[in-house]
Amino acid sequence: MTIEFTVFKGSANDGILQSKTYRDGPTSTQVLVKITHSGICGSDEHFKHADMVLGHEGVGTVEQVGEKVSQFKVGDIVGWGLLHKACGHCEQCEVGHDQYCANVEHYGAHNLDQGSFGSHAIWDASFLFKVPESMAPEDAAPLMCGGATVYNIIASYNIRPTDRVGVVGIGGLGHLAIQFLAKMGASVIVFSSTESKRDEAMRLGATEFYATKGVESFNMGAKLDHLLITTAALPEWNLFMPVMKPRGKIYPLSMPSGSGMINLPFAPMFFGGLTVQASLVAARSVQRNMLDFAARHEIKPIIERFPLTKAGVEEGMEKLRAGKMRYRGVLVMEE
Amino acid sequence: MTIEFTVFKGSANDGILQSKTYRDGPTSTQVLVKITHSGICGSDEHFKHADMVLGHEGVGTVEQVGEKVSQFKVGDIVGWGLLHKACGHCEQCEVGHDQYCANVEHYGAHNLDQGSFGSHAIWDASFLFKVPESMAPEDAAPLMCGGATVYNIIASYNIRPTDRVGVVGIGGLGHLAIQFLAKMGASVIVFSSTESKRDEAMRLGATEFYATKGVESFNMGAKLDHLLITTAALPEWNLFMPVMKPRGKIYPLSMPSGSGMINLPFAPMFFGGLTVQASLVAARSVQRNMLDFAARHEIKPIIERFPLTKAGVEEGMEKLRAGKMRYRGVLVMEE
Repeated sequence: MTIEFTVFKGSANDGILQSKTYRDGPTSTQVLVKITHSGICGSDEHFKHADMVLGHEGVGTVEQVGEKVSQFKVGDIVGWGLLHKACGHCEQCEVGHDQYCANVEHYGAHNLDQGSFGSHAIWDASFLFKVPESMAPEDAAPLMCGGATVYNIIASYNIRPTDRVGVVGIGGLGHLAIQFLAKMGASVIVFSSTESKRDEAMRLGATEFYATKGVESFNMGAKLDHLLITTAALPEWNLFMPVMKPRGKIYPLSMPSGSGMINLPFAPMFFGGLTVQASLVAARSVQRNMLDFAARHEIKPIIERFPLTKAGVEEGMEKLRAGKMRYRGVLVMEE
Repeated sequence: MTIEFTVFKGSANDGILQSKTYRDGPTSTQVLVKITHSGICGSDEHFKHADMVLGHEGVGTVEQVGEKVSQFKVGDIVGWGLLHKACGHCEQCEVGHDQYCANVEHYGAHNLDQGSFGSHAIWDASFLFKVPESMAPEDAAPLMCGGATVYNIIASYNIRPTDRVGVVGIGGLGHLAIQFLAKMGASVIVFSSTESKRDEAMRLGATEFYATKGVESFNMGAKLDHLLITTAALPEWNLFMPVMKPRGKIYPLSMPSGSGMINLPFAPMFFGGLTVQASLVAARSVQRNMLDFAARHEIKPIIERFPLTKAGVEEGMEKLRAGKMRYRGVLVMEE
């Protein structure tokens, strides 16, 4: 049986291309998902001119399952993120870091004919996640990449509840990072260009807030164990290096805008023994823990809704590009 | 009793200034050392115009000890490195990372009136190390900073005997790194600009050797878990990023020459979840383990000797600056 999906792709021009994908039904280990929601991630921007279906923060309803799929049934609400399939047998998969699989199938690795900007998708069941019952599907979508990206830092790099953790930027990633860190009991020190988001940051769980624009140095008590950089524009290192504790760790979470280079002053890194740690979304085990933790602590993205149509995708991506999204756009499939 | 030291300092001009330091004898916890040997480290170059005594790879004979010093006696052969005194009570000292002490007294932190380029020095006993009996004092000197710098990476960042570890550059640090890594059973993959040092690298324990000059990519089997960059000139990242395993770690060990910036292409770091780790010499416990390990496995620097005089310091530093040292210069005090 051939299934027809509506999908939204990048295009050589500036617009979004509405197109069709034709697929056989799910194989024995696959699941057909009817998409209800998709988050809009900054990474989609990097592929807006590519001939591939966009979107990797998908949530939907299970419509069909292959005969070997035991963990899902028709009607389940499921989600998926950047990682679509790992081989299971390479050195990275063997130790549970499937997001770094040597034979990975993920976003940008090839021209995908399906994604979360569309009506349906078929994925291997082992790369789908059940959305916790207490979590609204529209809130689950931005957790699939954005939530996983920030939670992976906490899980994989040993951030402790006694640590002082800086978060640069309050956007799609930053507003989730503040909540995750606050709920695990860490001190959350938030940096934003102006004072305009101070109250929001404190409501989300920040313990301190610093505006950065025009500032020459921070008048801060204790220094930082960790610094999560959630902005695409890299920060003024001369502001931040001096507030890192020795052996502190800096995590640039987004691909930097511009040249794609990250230019660091080495002397403060050297004398402080600092770490610059890059990180790619999350392994499945971390993603599962993240969803459970978010559900237990009612961690929710703050979202703006757009229809899951060509016009909706274009409007949402444009708003994100303009830096006006508060804080994650979610595309909603109309009934 | 006032003690007169001969010392060799940086100067505003290009030469080395021979001078005198006058000190009281050791306090109750201090030790007076008659210097017999000093390594010449690339870091001395950064202070050649500073009004401070150079040298931080010292070895000598204990001449006097304070009344509370129980671990050393007159006649012992001792050494010291970059770390001269840590406070013992800050957050870093509490957890044994005394090289990052918030109140540290070390090289460059202030204008030192003593160092290992001189006739004598007085240090707190807790920052001196006994030179193992089987180790020649001239071989011990370069281990005090150079050996500690490379061994600290092995000790502090969990390099394992099953790992593939790259070493970029065969110089003062590189030729020691190869030996330490080989003796702990790791695979040691050495990179040098030309083939000229291939045989030396293999003799020191390298398992593979690659020349880098004019090369566009390495034809290498398995990729690298760790990459130690021992050269002051940073490598062509586009050559090395592709041979890093996912979650691999890169350690730039020297202050980079030139702008002092380290400019990294972020995409391979991001997709590979790579770490860039800076590191400053070693904590005392690591330094002690390093000396013991080196003694047990007969790890020795390959040295060139110069007299510990104004002319000898100038000649040794000039040879290092010209990139002609094979591989560590040691200043020897004439009887």
